[in-house]
Amino acid sequence: MVKASKTETIKKKLKLHRLGIDTYRENVAYLHRECEVYRAEGFQALSKVKICADGRHILAVLNVVDDDSIVTPSDLGLSEEAFVKLGLDEGHIVSIEHAEPPASMNAVRRKIAGERLSQDDFNHIIRDITDKHYSKTEIAAFLVASGQTDMDRDEILYLTRAMLESGEQLRWNEPLVADKHCIGGIPGNRTSMLVVPIVAAHGMLIPKTSSRAITSPAGTADTMEVMANVELDIKKLHDIVRKHRACLAWGGTANLSPADDILIAVERPLGIDSQGQMVASILSKKLSAGSTHLLIDIPVGPTAKVRHMREAQRLRKLFEFVADQLAIHLEVIITDGRQPVGFGIGPVLESRDVMQVLQNSPNAPDDLRQKSLRLAGRLLEFDPDVRGGKGYSIARDILDSGRALEMMNTIINAQGAQSTKFELGKLTHEVLSPSDGTVISIDNLHMAHIARFAGAPIDKGAGVDLFKKLGDKVMKGEALYRIHAEFPSDYNFALKLSERDSGYLIGKEDQIPKAFVEF
Amino acid sequence: MVKASKTETIKKKLKLHRLGIDTYRENVAYLHRECEVYRAEGFQALSKVKICADGRHILAVLNVVDDDSIVTPSDLGLSEEAFVKLGLDEGHIVSIEHAEPPASMNAVRRKIAGERLSQDDFNHIIRDITDKHYSKTEIAAFLVASGQTDMDRDEILYLTRAMLESGEQLRWNEPLVADKHCIGGIPGNRTSMLVVPIVAAHGMLIPKTSSRAITSPAGTADTMEVMANVELDIKKLHDIVRKHRACLAWGGTANLSPADDILIAVERPLGIDSQGQMVASILSKKLSAGSTHLLIDIPVGPTAKVRHMREAQRLRKLFEFVADQLAIHLEVIITDGRQPVGFGIGPVLESRDVMQVLQNSPNAPDDLRQKSLRLAGRLLEFDPDVRGGKGYSIARDILDSGRALEMMNTIINAQGAQSTKFELGKLTHEVLSPSDGTVISIDNLHMAHIARFAGAPIDKGAGVDLFKKLGDKVMKGEALYRIHAEFPSDYNFALKLSERDSGYLIGKEDQIPKAFVEF
Repeated sequence: MVKASKTETIKKKLKLHRLGIDTYRENVAYLHRECEVYRAEGFQALSKVKICADGRHILAVLNVVDDDSIVTPSDLGLSEEAFVKLGLDEGHIVSIEHAEPPASMNAVRRKIAGERLSQDDFNHIIRDITDKHYSKTEIAAFLVASGQTDMDRDEILYLTRAMLESGEQLRWNEPLVADKHCIGGIPGNRTSMLVVPIVAAHGMLIPKTSSRAITSPAGTADTMEVMANVELDIKKLHDIVRKHRACLAWGGTANLSPADDILIAVERPLGIDSQGQMVASILSKKLSAGSTHLLIDIPVGPTAKVRHMREAQRLRKLFEFVADQLAIHLEVIITDGRQPVGFGIGPVLESRDVMQVLQNSPNAPDDLRQKSLRLAGRLLEFDPDVRGGKGYSIARDILDSGRALEMMNTIINAQGAQSTKFELGKLTHEVLSPSDGTVISIDNLHMAHIARFAGAPIDKGAGVDLFKKLGDKVMKGEALYRIHAEFPSDYNFALKLSERDSGYLIGKEDQIPKAFVEF
Repeated sequence: MVKASKTETIKKKLKLHRLGIDTYRENVAYLHRECEVYRAEGFQALSKVKICADGRHILAVLNVVDDDSIVTPSDLGLSEEAFVKLGLDEGHIVSIEHAEPPASMNAVRRKIAGERLSQDDFNHIIRDITDKHYSKTEIAAFLVASGQTDMDRDEILYLTRAMLESGEQLRWNEPLVADKHCIGGIPGNRTSMLVVPIVAAHGMLIPKTSSRAITSPAGTADTMEVMANVELDIKKLHDIVRKHRACLAWGGTANLSPADDILIAVERPLGIDSQGQMVASILSKKLSAGSTHLLIDIPVGPTAKVRHMREAQRLRKLFEFVADQLAIHLEVIITDGRQPVGFGIGPVLESRDVMQVLQNSPNAPDDLRQKSLRLAGRLLEFDPDVRGGKGYSIARDILDSGRALEMMNTIINAQGAQSTKFELGKLTHEVLSPSDGTVISIDNLHMAHIARFAGAPIDKGAGVDLFKKLGDKVMKGEALYRIHAEFPSDYNFALKLSERDSGYLIGKEDQIPKAFVEF
């Protein structure tokens, strides 16, 4: 028999090597096939391993390398984010061992079997996900399992709480910290960039952090970035909000509900979406950003995320239930989601629409103006001094007087004006109406796809500019919209997609579907 | 407006570069961040891309590289398997474009929403999986979705048929091609290595292909490899079977139900397992191997895969239903799965047990002998000339007379005797009984874990050698089993695990759980 102490002296060590490979939120470790540790430990590719040194450790998925120019047999290579996370220098001596599967996978398997999970279960799962103990496939298993049979509302509350507690929480020490959020799915819907300056001009605190697009052609952060720096560190964000009552920043720099970012990175490419996960995702982000009063916009329409009024009402109740339990003042507004909002789809085009509304330009899209005023009005009524029903007219006064534009310029300058001047994509193509008639349908999803194929949001000047909206009369051969692209291959992709299906239907006026909701 | 033809001249091409990185059944493409194509196409890490040249194409997940020594901006790097699959030379010019998500993911999303899928849906899903159009997360989504609400039996039939048709199918042109399969979960259960020589000695055709262990401490292929070459190409396998009526080979070299291999590679590490997927997996493999008569072994016990008789009966009906529809003669035998079979767990130890049974050694484990004889007996009764109930005694005569041993040696020599002599692991530790009494429980799963931690199956000499079985009397301090390891770190791991829980319970004779089944 061998004494355990002997093991320590034989235990193999490896030299840390930073490999500049971006594996997008999954830690990957690269080990040479001839490496003694690889043989000894009986690892196999895709095993999960634990890498340790100086009391630190990370978990990673293993890739096996046969090429000495990538890693030598005495090296341990780490992907970019994994290297940063471990936080040690190149050449540091590390050890590697088998990682046991995360204990909370038992709870995921119970969920797969149809069980109801407890607050403790969700805490464990979310902690393990935040600590990167889950592989992408394990995350997918959790998402599908909790999406398929769906969670009951207590489980949604548990999940929200667990996600909220997974990261930092901002504190503003004010009784009213306002925020708004749209559940998404409607291209061009850039109301935040109007609502924030209006509400802040009234004096209300509204520290707005937004996401970048993942599968859509533009997020608020992508669009704001056309005009201003949006990557603010926490201190700068705080300073700006303290001084000007508002910001329009990217939310990714603060460590708010980090589990949410990890889950979304797997969920969106899969194209799955459950109401429970949506509620937990949105509320955990907003609560951790320190919001006390929140307005949720649920657009309903045949090509929106929510397609029926009963579904919208169910989602509203879920939001209300979880918000009440977590003591945030929340109101839901159900809006018309039958078509894109405004004219432009894509960062440059959408920022043009926003600025035209702020400048009270006669070319400004009226639907974007009206929707923003109504949302801003509801937010203003969170102010105890504003009489019920008066929010809209206060918002309109602020916008018409130019005070909203002034506030927007203040925010842009505080965050730092954008030094690059982004131009509209030079490669253009107009899609024409096949017949005389009235526009009776514009497909939100399809228009988003065309804009995305054209290069949005990475190429800020790419996208789609709509000339006709629902109910507009058109003549055969008249342009319905124009595609903008910067690069020929994208241009070609978008063109092909618009040829397959323009996204528009032309018909008779009485064929326009009624809005499910009226303001 | 730009003409489409202009695009072609600008379209960027890249030089193919083989990166020796083993990413285990997922194609990965490596693109430099400064690569013009990367910027132009608006790719992001983890996007799926399509790589084309000379009318060939593969899909791959994208990793973004910042290090010129891995790929330069004019290169496209491919992981090992992806490079082989594309089948072009290093330096070949290839193009790359966005891959649309596989169309069949719509069916997966419908399954997530609780719908019943059609034969067409399963065909599309399985074809896309076989063609590597699915990412690991998409595969996990499919597995969980079809495991959670479970499939109805028609869906299981559809899935089996789709998997069966996803690869090659062997044809033997004989009316009776026998096979056996155990659903797994019982360590040491190496009955195939006894059943095959017995049945073949009778003259029955039994071309046995087996898997290597994925999460267990030894598969039949791993154990057979201790004595013989198991990696046979299709031609050699055919020749051996034609000449000797049998083989004991690894199934991985034939392209039989390749979708099954891909699914299992994601499913096993997740630790999920649904009856429907198990039936489809096993039957698609056996049917594609050309079997006409199949015996399925379902062990039942408190730490087996199947824990209750009613569950075993449900599984049996599923096997019978699908087999009848696909016109394979199938019988199910439910066996005692309360403890490991034989003494050894791990390739070298298990091959020792098998050879002792074949040699009629007095040290041979009687449970392995008895179980193998009963299974072989049932298989022999597939022969129309064998009278019902007489199979067992024919099997026993073949074994006792030494004809089974002779056939085993014939198979070993035909496949090629193993040139490496594998030895038992030199680092050993005996786990002792904590008290006087009777062995009342041995945990299958836990014993498998200890053997695996000790290094099995990669280190063939690693594993666990059981000295006591259910019902055996022990004295305090007497050895229950011995751990064998080759490497100190594995040794330490296995030791720690056995200290946390030995896997044995010592108690009073009347506490032994009754076998659910009696032979």
